[in-house]
Amino acid sequence: MLVAKKDKTYKSALQEQDGVESPDSLSSNAAEIFKARRRKQPSTQDLVSGITSGNITALSRAITLIESTNPAHSQKANEIINACLPHANTSIRIGITGVPGVGKSTFIEAFGLHLTSLGKKVAVLAVDPSSTLSRGSILGDKTRMEDLVKDKNAFIRPSPSGDSLGGVARKTRETIILCEAAGFDTVIIETVGVGQSETAVHSMVDFFLLLKLAGAGDELQGIKRGIIEMADAIVINKADGENIKAAKTAKVEFNRALHLYPAKASGWSPKVSLCSGLKREGISEVWEMIENYTTTTSDNGFFDSHRNNQNKFWLLQTIEERLKSNFYNSENIKVELKAQIMLVEAGKTTPFAAAEYLLSLQ
Amino acid sequence: MLVAKKDKTYKSALQEQDGVESPDSLSSNAAEIFKARRRKQPSTQDLVSGITSGNITALSRAITLIESTNPAHSQKANEIINACLPHANTSIRIGITGVPGVGKSTFIEAFGLHLTSLGKKVAVLAVDPSSTLSRGSILGDKTRMEDLVKDKNAFIRPSPSGDSLGGVARKTRETIILCEAAGFDTVIIETVGVGQSETAVHSMVDFFLLLKLAGAGDELQGIKRGIIEMADAIVINKADGENIKAAKTAKVEFNRALHLYPAKASGWSPKVSLCSGLKREGISEVWEMIENYTTTTSDNGFFDSHRNNQNKFWLLQTIEERLKSNFYNSENIKVELKAQIMLVEAGKTTPFAAAEYLLSLQ
Repeated sequence: MLVAKKDKTYKSALQEQDGVESPDSLSSNAAEIFKARRRKQPSTQDLVSGITSGNITALSRAITLIESTNPAHSQKANEIINACLPHANTSIRIGITGVPGVGKSTFIEAFGLHLTSLGKKVAVLAVDPSSTLSRGSILGDKTRMEDLVKDKNAFIRPSPSGDSLGGVARKTRETIILCEAAGFDTVIIETVGVGQSETAVHSMVDFFLLLKLAGAGDELQGIKRGIIEMADAIVINKADGENIKAAKTAKVEFNRALHLYPAKASGWSPKVSLCSGLKREGISEVWEMIENYTTTTSDNGFFDSHRNNQNKFWLLQTIEERLKSNFYNSENIKVELKAQIMLVEAGKTTPFAAAEYLLSLQ
Repeated sequence: MLVAKKDKTYKSALQEQDGVESPDSLSSNAAEIFKARRRKQPSTQDLVSGITSGNITALSRAITLIESTNPAHSQKANEIINACLPHANTSIRIGITGVPGVGKSTFIEAFGLHLTSLGKKVAVLAVDPSSTLSRGSILGDKTRMEDLVKDKNAFIRPSPSGDSLGGVARKTRETIILCEAAGFDTVIIETVGVGQSETAVHSMVDFFLLLKLAGAGDELQGIKRGIIEMADAIVINKADGENIKAAKTAKVEFNRALHLYPAKASGWSPKVSLCSGLKREGISEVWEMIENYTTTTSDNGFFDSHRNNQNKFWLLQTIEERLKSNFYNSENIKVELKAQIMLVEAGKTTPFAAAEYLLSLQ
């Protein structure tokens, strides 16, 4: 047991002691040190020339600026994006969705390695708005794609975090531009097949691929009805070993189901194929299918018109999100909205009259 | 064969003939006649006191003002609605949906007549945004509810026309207020189970009833997946004659399906029942079920909190629709939006930068 020593030197807790010395950061030359550090931050021009010459560090730094919530960073990011635009629009953008457990990471690794073996440069991005909350972002754990991570022609970036799907989707779309400017000719965007995120991804890619498992119903796979309609291909993963028979049956069934949907504006009939991400089988067939798709839709003009429509969609979407956030974030509206809701609840006004009043305050 | 007579009196088509006499409407006292007619237009005060004393003509005229696109009429309609508000909020609002052919009109007639036989006053409204285009509005053909139309305690009004679901829904919600002020204690709102209209109706009623047929799959009935989730009751119609057996089987299946959904915030477990609108069987059971629902949800506080949430939803919904229409209808934005879309298509700017620019013009 420790007993407090009675020391005559310190009679009172209020007694003054000697101060500690100033740390280095407060020393007289600190300002110089900071200025030197700041000078090391690459300029917009440095980052742009780095990106367009394929420098991965410059690409990563610029993406970090896109993801930042600091307005100065956003400003810088916008300048970089604008400078990269003439070098963008050069890749095939592939969306890949499927519920957890379907083997997305294993498939993407096999698929990505196949592409780099063909001399392609592959960027893998993700859209996962839940990642902010759960911290369990898809792609967050890069160790799930060990071999692809080591490949110098592959670039893997986890989902940006953001408070809304709109924010995450916007950041990902801007990141696509930078990746393309950095010379990546294939951009893969991964998402989980739940919520609205697959709709967002569908609206930013050229080709939308749905990964499924044989033998599990739609409900069990957590796949929403509309997703099948969006798919340009259904790839049945884990078609290996004892699963092969079930996978072949599933292929017949999906083919039948796909025929029930009306023809697509792309002129492309969605295909069903089998693969094994684990055994790296059926992977080249998926890529050949995507090449066929690109040829078909480039020839009939859909490829370009589709990208134009996507751009228009994002333009309008951004405007509408901003109109709402500008309105609701105004201090005056915040106060008055509360008051109007109380009046509506008390039956003193209608929701419509209250809305008119609030709009008149703008 | 007719041969044109050669008549010497009319040698040329240019020859002048005697004019016709001025019709009465152009006579010297026309202005007086019009002024007299205008004076006969009831005042806002007349309409409000008419409505609150249960006058159907006043109610119909006020609804016509709500439906008008003339700003002067809208102004008058708003005044009437505000004056009616203290008398509103008094009915049970029941939404009824089901695809064409399910027997909605026959069911509603049988149901409405049962309610008036109990001494209730029943208003039947409709939400059908397609009616503008097709002119084949549900409820438009009142002859489909011949007996209910003649019932002095029933009021039937077809769907307002409007260019958007939002507009139609808004007009219907305002009409509900007037019907309640006119003493209708039961308001039925009919809609077809396609598109988004059932979601709009669900957000304005206390109880949502889905009419179905036995033996037809969801796809065949054109029912979207989400609708089952919204239903407080599934009523299997045409459960008569040879259909009874199939209807009983369907009841078991629907009951099982309903148990798969998570419990509702209302604390109410959705029920399945059988009826025949044609034979007017099983109708009183539906009403008893709705009375049970009202008791349960009034006791647990859900009834009122649900209405408050609906009001809040409509308040925000109206604001957001108006923010968008105000923005896109500005002449300046119309011109600049076209220009920005062309720049985006040419790869000279991003959708996001274009959106920021357009927002900065406000």
